[in-house]
Amino acid sequence: MNKVETTRHIVDPFHTDYKKQLSWETLGVDLLNAAENHAALRGFGMKDVNDVNYTWVLARLVIELDTTPVVYQDYHIDTWIENVYSLFTNRNYAIHDGKGTVYGYARSIWSTINYETRKPVDLIEFHGKEFDAYCAPEINCPIAPYSRIKPLSGAEIVKMHKVNYSDIDMNGHVNSMKYLQHLRDIFSLEQYRRQRLRRVELQYQKESYYGQFLQFFMKKESDNIYDVEICRTDDETHEKGEVCVRARLIFE
Amino acid sequence: MNKVETTRHIVDPFHTDYKKQLSWETLGVDLLNAAENHAALRGFGMKDVNDVNYTWVLARLVIELDTTPVVYQDYHIDTWIENVYSLFTNRNYAIHDGKGTVYGYARSIWSTINYETRKPVDLIEFHGKEFDAYCAPEINCPIAPYSRIKPLSGAEIVKMHKVNYSDIDMNGHVNSMKYLQHLRDIFSLEQYRRQRLRRVELQYQKESYYGQFLQFFMKKESDNIYDVEICRTDDETHEKGEVCVRARLIFE
Repeated sequence: MNKVETTRHIVDPFHTDYKKQLSWETLGVDLLNAAENHAALRGFGMKDVNDVNYTWVLARLVIELDTTPVVYQDYHIDTWIENVYSLFTNRNYAIHDGKGTVYGYARSIWSTINYETRKPVDLIEFHGKEFDAYCAPEINCPIAPYSRIKPLSGAEIVKMHKVNYSDIDMNGHVNSMKYLQHLRDIFSLEQYRRQRLRRVELQYQKESYYGQFLQFFMKKESDNIYDVEICRTDDETHEKGEVCVRARLIFE
Repeated sequence: MNKVETTRHIVDPFHTDYKKQLSWETLGVDLLNAAENHAALRGFGMKDVNDVNYTWVLARLVIELDTTPVVYQDYHIDTWIENVYSLFTNRNYAIHDGKGTVYGYARSIWSTINYETRKPVDLIEFHGKEFDAYCAPEINCPIAPYSRIKPLSGAEIVKMHKVNYSDIDMNGHVNSMKYLQHLRDIFSLEQYRRQRLRRVELQYQKESYYGQFLQFFMKKESDNIYDVEICRTDDETHEKGEVCVRARLIFE
């Protein structure tokens, strides 16, 4: 079996924003599904690990797009494993039109955790050597690696959100792409008119749950770069809670 | 070409709720895409009408599920046109597993409107007779037709929502399935633990736009039936605005 697996999509009119561009959350979910499809075909998908009481969790994700595909355009996602370490694995993605034009790339880091203890397992021990056979560090992923997003100081709360029913996925916590939706909603339509989102970095640290409040602390690092900390609290306080997600959004 | 078109899906782990059941918004978008696919293959899809400055708009939707498919299950959507009238067309759907088990059905009503004037056109005149050739009133859709949801009196505001960037689709208004998400979010996780959503009816009356506020007025009609009016206003008032959507949710 190949190291790379490709999934094929078309931007449908119901997954676009007002500019007819593919929504980043839809692309995000497609990346997760591409990962799952690649892994499932090779015997280490979500179902395989769920069956023995473990689950895959996304620790980091970065997506960078030179151009955003628009309605009715094809977009293909190639995904492959860059490397496997004891506690995490790097998985990369190329997003292209299937005819030679590359829209952009993505990088992700995943762990396998025990469903009850939420502790990560040793991936090489857990998945065995066959997992290793699919590593492809030789394939180029020409976007910058994750930034070290430092804890924010002097950042202001720009938004509060009470976690809803629709935020929660089958893992019982706020879905990773829902954070991305709430992050993008910090910015006005006016901002999206003036600038295009080029790169998003997400660093998942803690889970958040139904009924909790999410606080969005934001700091503008430069004209185009915004750092955000999403913190969880049990009530509607502005006192800073525990950090769930650190994010960076870069416009152009 | 057949009167019925079928699209095939699998419930993926990233489009489920905390019970591992397919999310109703995802199913809703799949129904819209099934409609678009059926129409596009027959020459009257979104792109065909957009090209001449018109667009399809959804006026009504009802979805009723005897059972909700769960993660990794197949679900197929059959769609066909029941009838065409001068100002609207009825399109129905069967949702099944492809092996004889029917999950449920859906009904929808669509109009074609002029992109600028927002006025509906005469469908028989606009689309010509070939449109008529695909009508299949002989195919059974065994769920109750739309209820007459009466204007609510004495209903209380249960939620306010400021329209965000992610609510807006390429038509420049709040996406029809986003209303469904906001409606479902009125109810607590506790409610979903005790009861299963069986039927949703949506009656789209007016569009709402970025920056407006949506007011959710709700009235419990019986133990299992909730009627909701979604109204739009330009500021955060509790004074009732114009009705955009009338909805009924039936639990069991």
